[in-house]
Amino acid sequence: MTDKDSFTPVARTVLQQCLHGRLQVKPAEEGEEATWVQINRGMVIYICFFKGATDDTLPKMVSTLLNQRLCESDSGKMVSVLDLPGSLLIVPQATLGGKAKGKGMQYHGNIGKEDGLRLYQTFVSLCEKELLAAASAQTDTEVMVKHGTYGNRQVLKLDTNGPYTHLMEF
Amino acid sequence: MTDKDSFTPVARTVLQQCLHGRLQVKPAEEGEEATWVQINRGMVIYICFFKGATDDTLPKMVSTLLNQRLCESDSGKMVSVLDLPGSLLIVPQATLGGKAKGKGMQYHGNIGKEDGLRLYQTFVSLCEKELLAAASAQTDTEVMVKHGTYGNRQVLKLDTNGPYTHLMEF
Repeated sequence: MTDKDSFTPVARTVLQQCLHGRLQVKPAEEGEEATWVQINRGMVIYICFFKGATDDTLPKMVSTLLNQRLCESDSGKMVSVLDLPGSLLIVPQATLGGKAKGKGMQYHGNIGKEDGLRLYQTFVSLCEKELLAAASAQTDTEVMVKHGTYGNRQVLKLDTNGPYTHLMEF
Repeated sequence: MTDKDSFTPVARTVLQQCLHGRLQVKPAEEGEEATWVQINRGMVIYICFFKGATDDTLPKMVSTLLNQRLCESDSGKMVSVLDLPGSLLIVPQATLGGKAKGKGMQYHGNIGKEDGLRLYQTFVSLCEKELLAAASAQTDTEVMVKHGTYGNRQVLKLDTNGPYTHLMEF
């Protein structure tokens, strides 16, 4: 449980560990197959921004997510995705902002589309910078940041050795 | 965002939609292969109980999860898993109770093992009752409830057409 009395989150993330993750970034169209991105071992970040989120939220958020010990190393120790080292698959997930109202879900707390897209793009770009900077300090490691298309359906295939699902709010 | 000021949750669930989900319920041992359960179209329920959860929590929780419109029907309308109708894959997930403390995660809010196991078993059994009762009212539908082994590593493989990840706390 997080300390909820004292804070109203501006972003919600769900984190899962994967051995392999594959995400559609462009659906199939006439005469064209769908386009996919994929990572091997690493962390899936499902992310949703709420009203009130600003660019100022992002650096600390990225630093926390990438340095928090959420991943299981080969020896069974919990380490950060930077220390693993692992790749990142970032999945925009507006449904995470859902709030039950009767039997339906409402998403009134979610940030508007334009601001959400901008924050998402900056979030991805900060993740890329931080992950690649950490990776360059290590040898024989191939890590990458892949991400879904904001606003699209997130067709996802996941293969885990235990997803170790965590929730982190910012 | 949920109304957080007024309530301290006793259970946290993350819900995802799947086309196919496969979960290890018994790891491989000498001379024996691992045992898996699987569902086709339906909902994955990741679940974690906190201190303070009791059996009284469960009936309303199960009813809400199974009746909330969290699933996308063929026509693109959001419907409940009972109305879909879909199967359930229940994944015990203690990591959901994690709270950041420095770079580590702490799980002090989680319920004890014995109480957690009992609540989990009752939760699964209530889900089975409610899903099968609803399914028996429909023809040509084969739905099922499958679930992971409490306390084990949850080796999971998931195939989605959009996970529509939701968070619901009780």
